[in-house]
Amino acid sequence: MTAEAAQAPTRFVPGGFLFVLSGPSGAGKGTLVDHLVRLRADCIFAISSTTRPKREGEADGVQYRFVTREEFEAKRVQGYFLETATVHGNLYGTPANEVDEHVRQGRVVVLDVDVQGGASVRRARPDAVSVFVYPPSFDALRRRLEGRGTENSDAVERRLAHAPAELAEWRTYDYLVVNDELEAAVERLTAIVDAELARVRRLDAGV
Amino acid sequence: MTAEAAQAPTRFVPGGFLFVLSGPSGAGKGTLVDHLVRLRADCIFAISSTTRPKREGEADGVQYRFVTREEFEAKRVQGYFLETATVHGNLYGTPANEVDEHVRQGRVVVLDVDVQGGASVRRARPDAVSVFVYPPSFDALRRRLEGRGTENSDAVERRLAHAPAELAEWRTYDYLVVNDELEAAVERLTAIVDAELARVRRLDAGV
Repeated sequence: MTAEAAQAPTRFVPGGFLFVLSGPSGAGKGTLVDHLVRLRADCIFAISSTTRPKREGEADGVQYRFVTREEFEAKRVQGYFLETATVHGNLYGTPANEVDEHVRQGRVVVLDVDVQGGASVRRARPDAVSVFVYPPSFDALRRRLEGRGTENSDAVERRLAHAPAELAEWRTYDYLVVNDELEAAVERLTAIVDAELARVRRLDAGV
Repeated sequence: MTAEAAQAPTRFVPGGFLFVLSGPSGAGKGTLVDHLVRLRADCIFAISSTTRPKREGEADGVQYRFVTREEFEAKRVQGYFLETATVHGNLYGTPANEVDEHVRQGRVVVLDVDVQGGASVRRARPDAVSVFVYPPSFDALRRRLEGRGTENSDAVERRLAHAPAELAEWRTYDYLVVNDELEAAVERLTAIVDAELARVRRLDAGV
């Protein structure tokens, strides 16, 4: 073997990245993300902070970090969160330093955020890989929102009224996945993760 | 449903693209490309023109378009080819118009070219998706070249001597796939094709 050949890299280690899934409420991104993280050891959730009360069976630092509204607001002011959202009056936020640290360690950090959150995360982390999860139809969106049974019909109508404007945001994302059939949609997400991990600009070469 | 919702796209048709696989001689790109095209109906070969004599069982316009050296040179001068290569003294060329027409029709046109050809194709078609096929080791490269039995040991040594310079080109590609195990490598290529077909900038939206 020549000296040059000996210097050619023989292994390539992909760096991690932030994987943002967004889309209208009812598109089914939560279920997709759950499946993706369960299927792949290299994909993890970032643990969010929330002001919502801890439920039976939940532990601090596992599903969420449970904080008071005052703690949350203080952290928000310090720029602790990559993005925040209000759901049913409770605050949720993704800790920026945690996400960045996992990415540095080579992990794919999966974020499931609403369309507004998606826009702010992509502004804050332009190197994030973003997927717009698109519902197979407007009727499917309605069925999923009604099927949840967690909201009254006024809330469902309000969400549906937002949907057209939210759907129009698809063009600003890197990828689009139509969530027509769960298994097929998870496979498409998996393909995107695999492809991104094979991107030359993400590879660190070693001899 | 509101008028706005009715206007939201409901189907997305991905456009085709030119899929360039390159890498050093012996990296195994030919076998990879064969498997990919056999596995996927949306991936096709562009039929090359060649001056090499037709072999038993081959038909003009199926494996190759068989042309005389004069015809080939005349076409080359007219800019008919996207790239040309000389192998064992025979000329090979990929017709540009055929590739472009298939891409326009939404197909993934797969090109298997040497490193020099890869560079010129990417210059001519900057929107091509490119993959560098990397051998698992320098020894594996040697074994594949020797195993072919189609070349004398001088030719094998000449190809191996070129390998380090060719391997160094990996950074100029979009993706890198290490061809360590055929099935796994084909899956990685398939993931890249699927991901590229889900790219927002490739999608044509319809209602």
